[in-house]
Amino acid sequence: MTGTVYGVGLGPGDPELMSVRAYRLLTNARHVAYFRKAGRAGQARTLAGDLVPGGAVEFAMEYPVTTEIPLSDPAYNETLSLFYAQVTDHLAALALAGEDIVVLCEGDPFFYGSFMHLHARLRDRVPVEVVPAITGMSAAWTATGQPITWGDDVLTVVMGTLAEADLARHMEAADALVVMKIGRNFPKIVRALQAAAKADRAWLIEYAAMPGQTVRRLSDVPADHVAPYFSIVVVHGQGRRP
Amino acid sequence: MTGTVYGVGLGPGDPELMSVRAYRLLTNARHVAYFRKAGRAGQARTLAGDLVPGGAVEFAMEYPVTTEIPLSDPAYNETLSLFYAQVTDHLAALALAGEDIVVLCEGDPFFYGSFMHLHARLRDRVPVEVVPAITGMSAAWTATGQPITWGDDVLTVVMGTLAEADLARHMEAADALVVMKIGRNFPKIVRALQAAAKADRAWLIEYAAMPGQTVRRLSDVPADHVAPYFSIVVVHGQGRRP
Ligand SMILES: C[S@@+](CC[C@H](N)C(=O)[O-])C[C@H]1O[C@@H](n2cnc3c(N)ncnc32)[C@H](O)[C@@H]1O
Ligand SMILES: C[S@@+](CC[C@H](N)C(=O)[O-])C[C@H]1O[C@@H](n2cnc3c(N)ncnc32)[C@H](O)[C@@H]1O
Repeated sequence: MTGTVYGVGLGPGDPELMSVRAYRLLTNARHVAYFRKAGRAGQARTLAGDLVPGGAVEFAMEYPVTTEIPLSDPAYNETLSLFYAQVTDHLAALALAGEDIVVLCEGDPFFYGSFMHLHARLRDRVPVEVVPAITGMSAAWTATGQPITWGDDVLTVVMGTLAEADLARHMEAADALVVMKIGRNFPKIVRALQAAAKADRAWLIEYAAMPGQTVRRLSDVPADHVAPYFSIVVVHGQGRRP
Repeated sequence: MTGTVYGVGLGPGDPELMSVRAYRLLTNARHVAYFRKAGRAGQARTLAGDLVPGGAVEFAMEYPVTTEIPLSDPAYNETLSLFYAQVTDHLAALALAGEDIVVLCEGDPFFYGSFMHLHARLRDRVPVEVVPAITGMSAAWTATGQPITWGDDVLTVVMGTLAEADLARHMEAADALVVMKIGRNFPKIVRALQAAAKADRAWLIEYAAMPGQTVRRLSDVPADHVAPYFSIVVVHGQGRRP
C-alpha cells in the first residue's frame, strides 16, 4: 500500500484556526516534514507546536544557503531545483514504503506557498492531497475589524517584491488591496501606495492571529520600518453597502 | 453580563474544513442565526447541518422579497436597510440579555459576506467577534489540483456582476484570477475572459468542497450554461517556478 503525501495548510498561526481536518491529520501524524532556513526552527514547524505527536519522525527540509547567489543568476534556480529534487525523492520513497507524510504549510498551501514546488514534482509519482486553509490575509483583515470587500469591489493581491511602478499600477486599479512579502520592501510599498492615492486608508498587520499581533494605520508606522516576515498591508474596499 | 455576537465563518462546505474554533462555537451554541431567502433552508444553515445542537434556538433572518424592485431603485436599498435594522435589533437585544449568538456565515465572513451588514450595525452596541474561515475560492483552486499563484503573480478577484468591459480590463491586468457570483453572468464572463485572452486557461468549479463538486475546463462548458450560486471561475498564475 502506497502512502500519501498530505500538504496540510495550518492556517495563519492560531492553532484554533486550523481546520478540523488539518488538526486530525497533524495530531495523528507518524511523519511530518517542513521547510526551514538553516539554523532556524521553521515557521510552519513553529505554528504546529506541540500538536506534532511526540513519536512522529520529523523531516526538516533545510533550504540551501542562497544569499550569496543573486536571484537573477541561473545558479540560484539550479540550486533550488536540486534541493527540491532531493527532498521529493525522500518523500516519495517514504510514501512508496507505505508511509503517510504530513507536510506542514503556513496558511493555504496553494496560495503563494512553497508546497507547490513539492507538489509539482510528486503528483505523478505518489498520491498527493492538499488541505486548504485560512490564509494569512484573512487573519489580517479580520484583525482590522473591517470587511475587506463590499458589494462588487475588486480585490487585488500583490507581492511587495514587485517593481515600484508595477505595484502602483495594480494598486490604483484595485478597490480593495492586500500586499504580502513586505520586509525590506516596506518603504517602496509605501511610496507605491502614495502614488496610487491609497496610503491614507492602508493598514499594516504584523503577526496576524499569532502571538504579538499588531494592527496599525500605515500613517502611524515610521517610513524606514523593516516589517517582519509575517506582515501584510491591507486597504479595505468601499463598495456598495445598504 | 452582555453576550457576544459571533460571526462564524463555516468555510466552503465540507464540515471537516471548518476551523477548530468554528466547530467548537457551533457545537456549543445556544442561539444560532442565519440569512435565508423566503422558502429556502438557507445556504449557511445547510452547511452547518446537524452540527447545530438540538436544543439551540434558531433565528432565520429572511431576506425581504426584492425581486420586483430593480437594484438601481433607492427603494431596494431602503427595504434592505430596514431589514438589517430589524434583525440587528433582535440580535442586540439577545446579547444585552446575556446570550451569545452564533451567526452562521458561508466561507470567510469579511470576504464578500453578508455578515458585514450586521457587523456595521452591531459593533458599537454589543461585543462582536469574527472568526475567519477558509474561503470558497481556496476550496475551488484546491479542487483543480494546481496552485493559484506562483512567485510574484498578481491575483485579482472580481465579481461576475461587473460590466463586461470592466471585467475584461481587470482580467487582462491580472496574472491569476478568481471570478465569483457567476450564475446568469456566465456568458458575459466567458466573453470577457476571451477578450482578456484567458479563456483557454480558465476552469469552472461548481460546489467546491461540497457534495456534487465539479471541476471543468471552461472550454468544456456550453456557452449558455447557467451556473449555480456556488460556482467560481479560476485562472491559475504562471509565475516563476524553480
Ligand atoms: C510565502 S507567502 C505564504 C502565504 C500563505 N500560504 C498564506 O496562505 O497566507 C508568505 C507571506 O504571507 C504573509 N503571511 C502569511 N501568514 C501571515 C500572518 N499570520 N500574518 C502576517 N502575514 C502573513 C506574509 O506577507 C508573508 O510574507
Ligand atoms: C456572497 S459571496 C460569499 C463568499 C464567502 N464569504 C467566501 O469566503 O467564499 C458568494 C459567492 O462565493 C462563491 N462561493 C463561496 N463558496 C463557494 C463554494 N464552496 N463553491 C463555489 N463557489 C463558492 C460563489 O461564487 C458565490 O457566488
